[in-house]
Amino acid sequence: MNLVRENERVDDLQYKGLKIIQNPQSFCFGTDAVLLANFADVRKDDKIADLGTGTGIIPILLAGRTQFSKCDAVELQPDMVDMARRSVELNGLQDRISVHCHDIKRIKELLPHAGYDCVISNPPYKKINAGIKSAQDSHSLARFELACTLEDILAAANYLLRNGGRLCLIHQSDRIVDIIAQMRSLNMEPKRIRPIQPRQDKPANLIMVEGVKQGKPFCVWEPALCIFDSNGNYTDEMNRIYHRGEYSHD
Amino acid sequence: MNLVRENERVDDLQYKGLKIIQNPQSFCFGTDAVLLANFADVRKDDKIADLGTGTGIIPILLAGRTQFSKCDAVELQPDMVDMARRSVELNGLQDRISVHCHDIKRIKELLPHAGYDCVISNPPYKKINAGIKSAQDSHSLARFELACTLEDILAAANYLLRNGGRLCLIHQSDRIVDIIAQMRSLNMEPKRIRPIQPRQDKPANLIMVEGVKQGKPFCVWEPALCIFDSNGNYTDEMNRIYHRGEYSHD
Repeated sequence: MNLVRENERVDDLQYKGLKIIQNPQSFCFGTDAVLLANFADVRKDDKIADLGTGTGIIPILLAGRTQFSKCDAVELQPDMVDMARRSVELNGLQDRISVHCHDIKRIKELLPHAGYDCVISNPPYKKINAGIKSAQDSHSLARFELACTLEDILAAANYLLRNGGRLCLIHQSDRIVDIIAQMRSLNMEPKRIRPIQPRQDKPANLIMVEGVKQGKPFCVWEPALCIFDSNGNYTDEMNRIYHRGEYSHD
Repeated sequence: MNLVRENERVDDLQYKGLKIIQNPQSFCFGTDAVLLANFADVRKDDKIADLGTGTGIIPILLAGRTQFSKCDAVELQPDMVDMARRSVELNGLQDRISVHCHDIKRIKELLPHAGYDCVISNPPYKKINAGIKSAQDSHSLARFELACTLEDILAAANYLLRNGGRLCLIHQSDRIVDIIAQMRSLNMEPKRIRPIQPRQDKPANLIMVEGVKQGKPFCVWEPALCIFDSNGNYTDEMNRIYHRGEYSHD
């Protein structure tokens, strides 16, 4: 059983023996995936979906940390899907995680309506504008809203979630107004917000938001998560998150 | 000239000789007013309005810190209006600050449409619900949405602001979704957000938001403002804000 291809490497997630296959020439997961896996409120026996799963990092981390029953992970890029499937197999998680090669914009053709307790997404962040090249490489597809916009993600999550189900999302903090206004208009009420700041004295550049389908208005703010302290080292909280196994990437 | 009544006291704002008259038995301004006066982007020669001015604390602090040309401060409660007017007189600011006794819901009868560069508001925060007494005392009117809701404030600000003008608001952080969704629907785009946390490891309980009338979507997050450090003392930033004269209240 040779699960690793040329140019790929196997990274040890240093948590419950979990591993992941990555290709450093295309795309490796980042801190944002680790933070979202930590933020996501996934409960025992939950049926979950991960939209834009990439290497499959989030379902694999969540498989270690939580007791979800089944995860449908969706990814557009065939090479990423192939790699994610092999990582699932490498960890013996085939019974819990299925990786689908599919376009999130056509989610209705793949997955059942209102069939999920929790939907997670670490989508491409950057808005397309005139300055951005049209290259359809893995790196651009994972970073820019080329194949999939925020609106597409929210519409897919809204379709997938049962009433009371949770969407957990990480995105650029400057998009907060789009996220909140669109979530509310879809009746996925934002109930929990956590800004992520590089340092205590720096503006947030990322935010995590949890929306609850048909939830009542009341939003809790978690304390801003600071990545580095004033000496440039990880903060205590970041060390705790990484100690819990949500990985120390390079 | 006796400007101070029975039960009132004059507090020295310890900044450019500014003073304020308060009645400790009814309502004294709090940290939120100081923080909002610090957050507000008031520029030279701006025409500004303060909605729900209370004791007049925000225009008086801003008169020291900024060079606005004229401020219309609106307050519903006659006794507060009277006190605020006397504070304005005590500081010799009658040429720059006018205090009006008026209902914000009927702002169109008082002030001109699109006549303001900046609107500021530290409105009553708490939503009315079944558990709250119906007392119409100063304290309740200043704290609960009895006379004026968030919707009323936003509608009044939208009426008052010129295109490109700024609304600077402080409110309970759990209302962020209402604030953002309603601002956007009124075309006052939220452009700057600052959460306020009691401590670095505590959830934000207040937020400050700046919206720009007809502004383009793009929201900047300022670093979470922490009031106290882990020893329970003011943080360096709070000390800086108070040193700038935005007052140390008791």
